[in-house]
Amino acid sequence: MASKSAAPRRTSITRLPELGSADRSQLNHLLDVSRIGHFGVVVDGYPVVIPTAIAREADVVLAHGSSGSRWMRALASGAPTTLAVTALDGLEVARSAFESSMHYRSAVIFGCCRPVNDPRGKRAALDAITESMLPGRVAEVRDPTPKELAATLVLSLALDEWSLKVSAGWPDDTEDDVAANAWAGVVPIMSGYGPPQPAPDLRPGIEIPPSVRLLGELGG
Amino acid sequence: MASKSAAPRRTSITRLPELGSADRSQLNHLLDVSRIGHFGVVVDGYPVVIPTAIAREADVVLAHGSSGSRWMRALASGAPTTLAVTALDGLEVARSAFESSMHYRSAVIFGCCRPVNDPRGKRAALDAITESMLPGRVAEVRDPTPKELAATLVLSLALDEWSLKVSAGWPDDTEDDVAANAWAGVVPIMSGYGPPQPAPDLRPGIEIPPSVRLLGELGG
Repeated sequence: MASKSAAPRRTSITRLPELGSADRSQLNHLLDVSRIGHFGVVVDGYPVVIPTAIAREADVVLAHGSSGSRWMRALASGAPTTLAVTALDGLEVARSAFESSMHYRSAVIFGCCRPVNDPRGKRAALDAITESMLPGRVAEVRDPTPKELAATLVLSLALDEWSLKVSAGWPDDTEDDVAANAWAGVVPIMSGYGPPQPAPDLRPGIEIPPSVRLLGELGG
Repeated sequence: MASKSAAPRRTSITRLPELGSADRSQLNHLLDVSRIGHFGVVVDGYPVVIPTAIAREADVVLAHGSSGSRWMRALASGAPTTLAVTALDGLEVARSAFESSMHYRSAVIFGCCRPVNDPRGKRAALDAITESMLPGRVAEVRDPTPKELAATLVLSLALDEWSLKVSAGWPDDTEDDVAANAWAGVVPIMSGYGPPQPAPDLRPGIEIPPSVRLLGELGG
């Protein structure tokens, strides 16, 4: 997520009558700039929350993990799940503590994951996850081995049932508070990339690849 | 969370033999720099995941929300919960897609929330949440009204049962991959604050307060 997309856009800073949004393009954008989501699943009657890397591909969210993970296997078995994807865009500083809040975008997707087992679909899903984190990276690395593919569980969650809340307004203070002396406004929260750090065992002469260079330019 | 604390510290970039950490001070630090957490709770047999602002105060995590929220009331009723608090610190770019990963800190806290109902404790908890978001802000705003206090539900979750995973290593590529031509390293992910934007209805002459100025210095 680059600074530009993480900062609240000027056009979006208007008090919305309702926080809820049914705008699929807004949902897509949030999923596309978010690197992680939190899956909820019930295991033995208890709630489990699993943070994991996500990527959107058309009408599904993809996630992957170790095929040895108990939680991933619970999700793959088709247990009902809730995926929360949350972006924090700013502090909404009101004139009272009560009205103070945050600018955020919060998506919740309901459904059941299905495992992606067919080799071609699994490979395509893993490529999509890699590209989502680091666009251009798939062309720079070797193909996964059959052993690596077998050790990876890929999950797909359809974007059928979802809700999206967007908080992007100005503080909504009472007239009395506006007339008093406290400051009010918004402090944007931004995210970006720092300078790439080469691994200690990197062979001399291997330059920073285009994928990583491009991230740096975005995060500048 | 300021840039400085969000960036992986140089000293932490060493491959850990195990990801798990029992270091309470590391847990405290993660909770203290994190502004939101994701609560999981089971409602009617289904998993619900609730993103919400959190603050740590000694040995508990505090959260607050509308007393009209169904999910907050489910948590307040003492239903078992899992709170996930996740910080993303960087992209771990390995020489293969399979070994590529993220630098993250991930805490999971298990237990049951208890509502903070006594007026003095509730007020102290709300102040702690405000200060956690914006240090110094409580002294700059008026006291909450009894009506505001009644409209707010405050939850406390004890730090009794928790786990912490920290991924902060260098890519762990095979010898063959190290000998080949792909780049490997880490790209830090950083978070900071942008310039404060005054509310359109701010009265002329009200300066940016110390609390907000300090944030800017941290995030600059």
